[in-house]
Amino acid sequence: MTDSAIRELEISRLSTQEKDFDTRLEALLAWEGVSDSAVQQRVDEIIAAVKARGDAALVDYSNRFDRMSVSSMTELTLGPERLREAFDNLPREQRDALAAAAERIRTYHQRQKPESWHYTEADGSVLGQQVTPLDRAGIYVPGGKAAYPSSVLMNAIPAHVAGVREIVMVVPTPDGVLNELVLAAAHLAGVDHVFTIGGAQAVAALAYGTETVPRVDKVVGPGNIYVATAKRAVFGQVGIDMIAGPSEILVVSDGETDPEWLAMDLFSQAEHDEDAQAMLVSWNAKHLAAVEAAMARLLPTMEREAIIRTSLRERGALILCDDRNEAVTLINRIAPEHLELSLEDPGSLLPEIRHAGAIFMGRYTAEALGDYCAGPNHVLPTSGTARFSSPLGVYDFQKRSSIIHCSPEGASSLGETASVLARGESLTAHARSAEYRLRK
Amino acid sequence: MTDSAIRELEISRLSTQEKDFDTRLEALLAWEGVSDSAVQQRVDEIIAAVKARGDAALVDYSNRFDRMSVSSMTELTLGPERLREAFDNLPREQRDALAAAAERIRTYHQRQKPESWHYTEADGSVLGQQVTPLDRAGIYVPGGKAAYPSSVLMNAIPAHVAGVREIVMVVPTPDGVLNELVLAAAHLAGVDHVFTIGGAQAVAALAYGTETVPRVDKVVGPGNIYVATAKRAVFGQVGIDMIAGPSEILVVSDGETDPEWLAMDLFSQAEHDEDAQAMLVSWNAKHLAAVEAAMARLLPTMEREAIIRTSLRERGALILCDDRNEAVTLINRIAPEHLELSLEDPGSLLPEIRHAGAIFMGRYTAEALGDYCAGPNHVLPTSGTARFSSPLGVYDFQKRSSIIHCSPEGASSLGETASVLARGESLTAHARSAEYRLRK
Repeated sequence: MTDSAIRELEISRLSTQEKDFDTRLEALLAWEGVSDSAVQQRVDEIIAAVKARGDAALVDYSNRFDRMSVSSMTELTLGPERLREAFDNLPREQRDALAAAAERIRTYHQRQKPESWHYTEADGSVLGQQVTPLDRAGIYVPGGKAAYPSSVLMNAIPAHVAGVREIVMVVPTPDGVLNELVLAAAHLAGVDHVFTIGGAQAVAALAYGTETVPRVDKVVGPGNIYVATAKRAVFGQVGIDMIAGPSEILVVSDGETDPEWLAMDLFSQAEHDEDAQAMLVSWNAKHLAAVEAAMARLLPTMEREAIIRTSLRERGALILCDDRNEAVTLINRIAPEHLELSLEDPGSLLPEIRHAGAIFMGRYTAEALGDYCAGPNHVLPTSGTARFSSPLGVYDFQKRSSIIHCSPEGASSLGETASVLARGESLTAHARSAEYRLRK
Repeated sequence: MTDSAIRELEISRLSTQEKDFDTRLEALLAWEGVSDSAVQQRVDEIIAAVKARGDAALVDYSNRFDRMSVSSMTELTLGPERLREAFDNLPREQRDALAAAAERIRTYHQRQKPESWHYTEADGSVLGQQVTPLDRAGIYVPGGKAAYPSSVLMNAIPAHVAGVREIVMVVPTPDGVLNELVLAAAHLAGVDHVFTIGGAQAVAALAYGTETVPRVDKVVGPGNIYVATAKRAVFGQVGIDMIAGPSEILVVSDGETDPEWLAMDLFSQAEHDEDAQAMLVSWNAKHLAAVEAAMARLLPTMEREAIIRTSLRERGALILCDDRNEAVTLINRIAPEHLELSLEDPGSLLPEIRHAGAIFMGRYTAEALGDYCAGPNHVLPTSGTARFSSPLGVYDFQKRSSIIHCSPEGASSLGETASVLARGESLTAHARSAEYRLRK
């Protein structure tokens, strides 16, 4: 054992019985992902440059920020053959695992497809809703240490299932290093083109288009503060998914799950990065202590020990609560991105859970299974935004159009109502437009 | 007839045959709703003040901006009894029209409710999606000249149908003037509380909460540039709907609809405000001329003549195209908020229309009917954002949680795949968390 094995585990220990519990919990949960004005200004400049200079700006920024030495976008473009090649050349085991994951993700997301519908009223008028896919989606994939093939699958497959005509992926390749697993995942997920660009400039290129990069209708995918700031800036010009904060998990345990399993589940969240948040809630104090001991014991054996240690110290928590009901209250207050219900009968809790990105039920459902291959999406609302938003899904790559087809009879009866209301709003052209269709 | 009767109608006349057609159309469609840095800074200050001083800031701003003289939020709060009173005291005709509209809007939106679903796999694992409503929604209703009771119905009824627990409405009342129709609509739509505050301060209050105003999960509804800027700023803290640009309509006519009907349909869009956009497309040049003549003839009879005249001059267009197919191309390029298909067989076009907020089919379906009472929502994606967004709907007030419940067998087979992929991403805590659940 190394020295670190005997270091005490630094993590917040809370109890709902303590007077300052609310304040401490609030402080732990607080996360301000807001970019400062320097970042904001830099991003505005980059977006303006890409709008003005197109490909030339992308080439410049890639040479500068990613230490490339290219002279045209051709060198930053990968076609479908290159993606297939990456897939074909993977070791068998990885190829099979990636294909198995893609297949399960596709199957799950196919259940999300909404149908167009309409109904006919007694007077012959038809009302309905037509569902159509986006023409073109842009997937941002981070480069370097956070280049995850699983994220490519999770972002691109819903777009593909939705029927998006063209899926464009951008991924920076610092120092020109390509990640073959990422390219292989792009092949499997139905990505049409890959541009090896990143940062705010890649977001700007997707939002406004350049000579080479086609303008897309929506930009999705995680990224650093420059990427997040650029997404916020182009929101409205194109659609965007949520702007993600650090990843988090809330595990609720009844005390009967193996403490080592739970320790590792918490580590799997904490290892993402120093800002990630791993929290365990239980009404069994002895169990909390046992999980803590398991964490202290296992931590020195972890490859990403330093990251995990920082994450647990800064943002982790072991929370003692009174009972199951109080655990439910905590869940709904925290609205966690990932919720693991390590309980004998997790189903009994489900109807009471109002806010959570993904719910992992029972002792066997480690979050890691959902991260890779269970089927549901791993792009989930963070920082309490599960109060109002959903996992990335097929619905993010489709939109609806209302359909109204009035019969002459329908137009006449609706026209009476519309005329009264329009005149109440002093919009007389509205009223007269409706009145033309009244039956004489 | 007045002098204005003989004024020439000023409106852009375009033909797809002209060389500069693309450029001219692009210029007409261009709309930059971006707020300048002075507005941005003012909004940031207001948000900071509301976060820091709560109710006191709201009282100050209302006194200053809306020329009120109140000393506490009590004076800016209307309870459910006041809303009911407003409804009960309406003239019979208005009360009936409002109730009829509310009923139809409710019926249509009930069709939008998605169901939770789940499925069980061969190994006993369960996957699914749980749909839940937001806890609390905030509806922004503009005051003054743009206070529309119909907007209250359109924004609040979908929230109510979604099952939102509490619906909070804010509406500024400049000089203390209450709009009884707006309050009556709030009563019908299921609004719980009304606060008579507006501007960026109202958005900040909804997003962060004050002593009196409860923090909501999502803010929807139209507003001026301060409101739009504030919504963009609080996006992430709460959900928001789209940031709306000026309203627009694209009418496509086969030449057989009464020119006066179409003239009035175009006016009904143009009368909203000077930035509103009304465009007519036809492949029948004579018909375009006839509509133009009708517009010139009818315009002097309009109550809102000046607004209509400016709107048509600055942003309106009569567009001659080659044929039906070219009209479809234009529709998909423009992605209009409102699309009126004034055609003999509008249904034959429907499968080809990829982007539109709402589609009004046939000669009898005036947009005005949809604005008030047909049933579908009148809050629609503007400025081409129908490429990637949808009418406001029940789905905007609900969110989804993924459900994963692995059987021991399922956890074991998924664990094999997850382990390979996690190690490929160097996330070994993920791998080990999955491996704990492998069958020995």
